[in-house]
Amino acid sequence: MKFWSKITQTLTPYIPGEQLNKTGIIKLNTNENPFPPSPKVIEKIKKCVGSQLKKYPDPESSELKNSIANFYGIETNNVFIGNGSDEVLAHAFMAFFKDKKLYFPNITYSFYPVYCKLYEINCQTIPLNKKLEIDINPYLSLDGNIIFPNPNAPTGIGMNLDAIEEILINNPNNLVVVDEAYIDFGGKSAVELTGKYKNLLIIQTFSKSRSLAGMRIGFAIGNAKLIEGLMRVKDSFNSYPLDRLAQAAGKAAIEDKDYFEYTCDEIIKNREWTMSELKIRGIDFLPSKANFIFVKLEDAENMYKKLKARKILVRYFKKTLIDGYLRISIGTKEEMEILVKNIDQIMGV
Amino acid sequence: MKFWSKITQTLTPYIPGEQLNKTGIIKLNTNENPFPPSPKVIEKIKKCVGSQLKKYPDPESSELKNSIANFYGIETNNVFIGNGSDEVLAHAFMAFFKDKKLYFPNITYSFYPVYCKLYEINCQTIPLNKKLEIDINPYLSLDGNIIFPNPNAPTGIGMNLDAIEEILINNPNNLVVVDEAYIDFGGKSAVELTGKYKNLLIIQTFSKSRSLAGMRIGFAIGNAKLIEGLMRVKDSFNSYPLDRLAQAAGKAAIEDKDYFEYTCDEIIKNREWTMSELKIRGIDFLPSKANFIFVKLEDAENMYKKLKARKILVRYFKKTLIDGYLRISIGTKEEMEILVKNIDQIMGV
Repeated sequence: MKFWSKITQTLTPYIPGEQLNKTGIIKLNTNENPFPPSPKVIEKIKKCVGSQLKKYPDPESSELKNSIANFYGIETNNVFIGNGSDEVLAHAFMAFFKDKKLYFPNITYSFYPVYCKLYEINCQTIPLNKKLEIDINPYLSLDGNIIFPNPNAPTGIGMNLDAIEEILINNPNNLVVVDEAYIDFGGKSAVELTGKYKNLLIIQTFSKSRSLAGMRIGFAIGNAKLIEGLMRVKDSFNSYPLDRLAQAAGKAAIEDKDYFEYTCDEIIKNREWTMSELKIRGIDFLPSKANFIFVKLEDAENMYKKLKARKILVRYFKKTLIDGYLRISIGTKEEMEILVKNIDQIMGV
Repeated sequence: MKFWSKITQTLTPYIPGEQLNKTGIIKLNTNENPFPPSPKVIEKIKKCVGSQLKKYPDPESSELKNSIANFYGIETNNVFIGNGSDEVLAHAFMAFFKDKKLYFPNITYSFYPVYCKLYEINCQTIPLNKKLEIDINPYLSLDGNIIFPNPNAPTGIGMNLDAIEEILINNPNNLVVVDEAYIDFGGKSAVELTGKYKNLLIIQTFSKSRSLAGMRIGFAIGNAKLIEGLMRVKDSFNSYPLDRLAQAAGKAAIEDKDYFEYTCDEIIKNREWTMSELKIRGIDFLPSKANFIFVKLEDAENMYKKLKARKILVRYFKKTLIDGYLRISIGTKEEMEILVKNIDQIMGV
């Protein structure tokens, strides 16, 4: 269309997992948390629903920022808040990645190349190794910035902090963004390295381990100058990214550490149970530190379709190297039992 | 900082009005609505606060989109939803304004030049006339796209549809974006022209006339191809811009037409009352079609400071041509009475 900018003409947007919120569907396709948000979150939101919604929210989300800083034992000027981690990522791409080459794994969160198109960033992918792990060797001494998720998506494979530190030490002039969307399910966060390395930015979300995908809250942690860069972009885009209820919900969620730990533990248990059941059946999968398992199947697309016909939604990526896998989110124990039962029936066991 | 992109280095972010939400302050500085959201909005949000917040929201905000389409008697593919109208504006600048020159009034919403810096858009301002109105003559047959608010901000002066139509007819190859943030307080919306003119995009917000500044909801209306352009940018930035509660709140707000009309009428009455009181005192102001009045004073900065000392917050812009004015939002009748009384006391009447 003649009014579209050149960039708009070339965009191929990110496609999120299907959002079929019909009743009776077991939804294991977008890595949501099977547990509801903490009761304290629900209570807090209800308290905030009233006449004050006529007023603008705090543009800085200061109280939420404070609570996140307290949780991690850092300062508030090391925290940036956004409307979901996708918005935080978008701002990071604009704030830091525009002028240099950007490197990321060839198999990873498929939104990264989309941001690159939007902001005209020159990007290059680095292949995973044969085990579908991120091999850190190609990431040492690069001539550009770096982004990768830990654990990686959709493989679920985690990286230890020593490996991340080696990448940081060997790229002093490059920014390294670690996307920790799934870190709370058994991985170790690199937040503790942000004090030591000025070239490290961590991005996290409330959509997975905090059961708040429906409220759109993401954040970044890094040194104060990196946070200031993000603030500059945010304040040139939208002064008030989080509404009043999202700010309140986020604060209550991060302060309820017991509930957070309990629900993460349960999900890890369900993941381990599911992996052991798959193993018994001789079904292969990658070692997961996330709230999903990347499962290898002879005909993954067919299994995806057959599960869908049985009202179980998982994610299938029609993409070279990973089209033999299904990404299955970890639901409740009951949901995982139904999944395994249905796989058995489909495979004719 | 070495990790900041060149653009980030040059950004001078938009600065919103002060958000001093202390008790006892009369806040007439950010054009919020003095009335709470409709009781139906409050009720609807409360119903949605529960376990479903663990699930992603509808990425398309389909139900809200339907309700807006119904309200205006248009199709859903003529509606785009964003996280406040600031986000909708940002996406419009990226989707449509990147490749050509952009024109807007020299006195207008101060976020426009900020977006231009962020997206490296070449912009040129067109002076208001001596009465601080938008004179349409310079806007006929331009060599670039056009954006202006109707009514304009911070003047509050409205433009009639004939004038807008003349701009549209004389710029068939340029996109004209009309920012209708304040249209519901006595102006006439150009939505009815969107069916006829493919070069027209309307942007509106729930922050003013719908009493939902705290929930961050904005939208655009235009022909389906323009909406598709916005969708492409949005889906390359953040799939889920509105959380579940914002979507529900917006739907309930737009469906409660009676409450909307009642509160808009009351604000218009309060505005007319305030203007007549200012007139009695010989205080000059611009004719307003918005929920604020742009008031001319001998020493506007001093009046701003003195009102602030008396816990009345209004907006002062330290900027050539308008530094002799204060922008005063229309509050409740009681708030406007207190304002007038305090102006009297400060002026020693």
